[in-house]
Amino acid sequence: MLKDKKMVESITSMDVDFAKWYTDVVKKAELVDYAPVRGCMILRPYGYAIWENVQKVLDGKFKDTGHENVAMPLLIPESLLKKEADHVEGFAPEVAWVTFGGNEELTERLCVRPTSEVLFCDHYSNIIQSYKDLPKLYNQWCSVIRWEKTTRPFLRTLEFLWQEGHTMHATFEDAEAETLKILDIYASFCEDYLAIPVIKGKKTDKEKFAGAYATYTIESLMHDGKALQCGTSHNFGDGFAKAFDVTYTDKDGKIKHCFQTSWGVTTRLIGAIIMVHGDDNGLVLPPRIAPTQVMVVPVAMHKEGVLEKANELKDRIGKFARVKVDGTDKTPGWKFAEYEMKGVPLRLEIGPKDIEKNQCVLVRRDSREKIFISLDDLETEIPRILDEIHIGLFEKAKKAQLEKTSSAKTLEEFNEKLDKQPGFIRAMWCGDVECENKIKEVASASSRCMPFNDQERISETCACCGKEAKTLVYWGRAY
Amino acid sequence: MLKDKKMVESITSMDVDFAKWYTDVVKKAELVDYAPVRGCMILRPYGYAIWENVQKVLDGKFKDTGHENVAMPLLIPESLLKKEADHVEGFAPEVAWVTFGGNEELTERLCVRPTSEVLFCDHYSNIIQSYKDLPKLYNQWCSVIRWEKTTRPFLRTLEFLWQEGHTMHATFEDAEAETLKILDIYASFCEDYLAIPVIKGKKTDKEKFAGAYATYTIESLMHDGKALQCGTSHNFGDGFAKAFDVTYTDKDGKIKHCFQTSWGVTTRLIGAIIMVHGDDNGLVLPPRIAPTQVMVVPVAMHKEGVLEKANELKDRIGKFARVKVDGTDKTPGWKFAEYEMKGVPLRLEIGPKDIEKNQCVLVRRDSREKIFISLDDLETEIPRILDEIHIGLFEKAKKAQLEKTSSAKTLEEFNEKLDKQPGFIRAMWCGDVECENKIKEVASASSRCMPFNDQERISETCACCGKEAKTLVYWGRAY
Repeated sequence: MLKDKKMVESITSMDVDFAKWYTDVVKKAELVDYAPVRGCMILRPYGYAIWENVQKVLDGKFKDTGHENVAMPLLIPESLLKKEADHVEGFAPEVAWVTFGGNEELTERLCVRPTSEVLFCDHYSNIIQSYKDLPKLYNQWCSVIRWEKTTRPFLRTLEFLWQEGHTMHATFEDAEAETLKILDIYASFCEDYLAIPVIKGKKTDKEKFAGAYATYTIESLMHDGKALQCGTSHNFGDGFAKAFDVTYTDKDGKIKHCFQTSWGVTTRLIGAIIMVHGDDNGLVLPPRIAPTQVMVVPVAMHKEGVLEKANELKDRIGKFARVKVDGTDKTPGWKFAEYEMKGVPLRLEIGPKDIEKNQCVLVRRDSREKIFISLDDLETEIPRILDEIHIGLFEKAKKAQLEKTSSAKTLEEFNEKLDKQPGFIRAMWCGDVECENKIKEVASASSRCMPFNDQERISETCACCGKEAKTLVYWGRAY
Repeated sequence: MLKDKKMVESITSMDVDFAKWYTDVVKKAELVDYAPVRGCMILRPYGYAIWENVQKVLDGKFKDTGHENVAMPLLIPESLLKKEADHVEGFAPEVAWVTFGGNEELTERLCVRPTSEVLFCDHYSNIIQSYKDLPKLYNQWCSVIRWEKTTRPFLRTLEFLWQEGHTMHATFEDAEAETLKILDIYASFCEDYLAIPVIKGKKTDKEKFAGAYATYTIESLMHDGKALQCGTSHNFGDGFAKAFDVTYTDKDGKIKHCFQTSWGVTTRLIGAIIMVHGDDNGLVLPPRIAPTQVMVVPVAMHKEGVLEKANELKDRIGKFARVKVDGTDKTPGWKFAEYEMKGVPLRLEIGPKDIEKNQCVLVRRDSREKIFISLDDLETEIPRILDEIHIGLFEKAKKAQLEKTSSAKTLEEFNEKLDKQPGFIRAMWCGDVECENKIKEVASASSRCMPFNDQERISETCACCGKEAKTLVYWGRAY
């Protein structure tokens, strides 16, 4: 019998040191391990299984909206990366360069893709001829590399997994509609599957993607009040299409440039799940994305019929939920702590007395509430409770987000409120990048977005310079 | 109305120039496009959809046998690659080296993974402690890079997609059992899903994987009589485990080295599908892996009710098969040629007269046979015919393989038969690498495998040197 190692090896409290708590959770819940190369991570089975569930749901949504998957190569010739001026300026400083193939020095350096706009543009320029070929709606699931200085698992790593959609359209309006459609898919995915409330909005020019005409974003708030960009969707206009000569012959016989979008979410979403829902006992996984939704733990397992009953329940539950039995010889106490750490939404305990009474105990990970249910009611109660957990997690996160959102009319008020209560600051802005820079300098906060669904005019003047305000902006200290 | 471009733009006949036929098919069936970097390819939606189906089936089989997916990093430090001597010797000459991160020259070169044994070993050495941690059965789906000199889409490319399984076991026997279990999964996958008959066997020492104790393989024969290695499964013994210090504490309290396997199949399987089943009209896809199993082509589409009927049939068929309707304004002739080129197993034609008679026409891609069926029988007839197509393709390929397999007792006979009829040559071998080298030199044939299920003693002497024969070997000219 192993010692109840997990029960003693507790994690740092999140209120004592949030960064340390985070690192403890990702390691002890066995989501990741560090790799031999600085800033890279190994996604362990439990971490990767969460990503697989993210992939499955999003991939289905992309396909339902007419998108097709492709696989582009990993390497980009330097000359290709340089074709669009803003883009190369944004990415060249942070790419990994391949200079040798085997023992041979290459005549042209190749970068490991940091993102694949230029590859898609080059390909699209070869395959698009007519308006009948449009729209082209491609996506790929892959990893990219960005040579970051400081890294943290899931949130910022040299290499990360993501999906990148790249689409071409006949008109600016079509591209804009696609950009916003995807933003909606991202937002509803975060809310309906990850139980993470998000603010949809537009990035300022300073914060938009290198080479984009407009970048839209979904922003969320972590437990520590810091903001996290959860996904972005870019409308490129015809800028890249002009640089890469991506054209089509329109119905009127004229040759026109295509309009382009790109959009992506990354394994960073797993970081968001951890930091929005986690607690001092570890991970708390939203049920719809949890690799295991119900963990069956037999109690007094050596007693006749207990393990058999546990397996029988697993088979029944397996028809409507992702379920496992832990039939190892570890103590129930070790198992309880382990699956709390791993954030399994529901634990099902079954022992000889329960069997006698035709019942079992369900323990919710979110509230730790114990619920006795009749074994006759598994099929109705478990899905109901899993839904209840999802809703509860979302509402708790929404409440926290609202509590951590305040408004400020002046830079002084801005600073004061943000210091007192880290979170979103709603403040008016004149549209000038100098004010953005000043707020960054004074309050260490960046503009997160100009929200779609919250355009109250808090005041008529920019919180920073006092000139006429153009728009409401959500600001925050961000990951 | 577009011209019937496809009908005039025919492909090279496979008997005139097989290599050119192959390139025509991969391009015109829109499986791949060439990438900006030499020897890399773009997997277009249709090509990638085949790979997605391969992934889905194999991933299910891996998970059913207890394997878990992970994601390892892309980059390997040079020092780590060098830890196992045979391995580095095998791979170092063909890896891509990253030497710069952004503007900074790296202190140690990093290679883009050509395969990930060293990464898995390093990770396993961190996470395996006790016999209770074994076996560890990990797999990943990713791409790797090998700096090949000559390349051909799917068959040999600088970068390719694959899955790589890496497992650790307590004993040599456990590792051997795993290696063979996976080989069986690969073989039955090829036969039951791709309709490709394979020869299972063991590689000679000359042909085994760099650093492996033993390599097992499945070998198939292409239309042109050349052999193709479709998948390999390696037993590493404890060689890597010793180099990387991967140990566990056994039940007896002693510290022991783990035993290891690795195994993989790649996008090369798509090349095999093309070259085993294809014909002069293009691709012929085995139904169980075809992205679209049934293509509904409305005839006289402008007539009232035809397109509606086509969509109605699509909805019905969609319940049990992968189906699409082509409702574009191209001619039926263009569509027929297009979906023949793309190898869609069944075409369903529906026109006003068919609707009147409550029937439709099914056209098999393999035999081009036309079958009239009542619309009442879609649910029974289509699955039956798809199965029949699978069986037919497999039997045809098996027959071709047998016809192209001959036996030889001497090197002279070997050479003569292989020149007359490219294919597998069955010949006895003494076990000496010098004979293998000589056969390679004289007949340009390599040993494909020592087959499991065919160990007839054709003669008592090695076909090359005349010394005592140890084993029967399948030889061939290979891709």
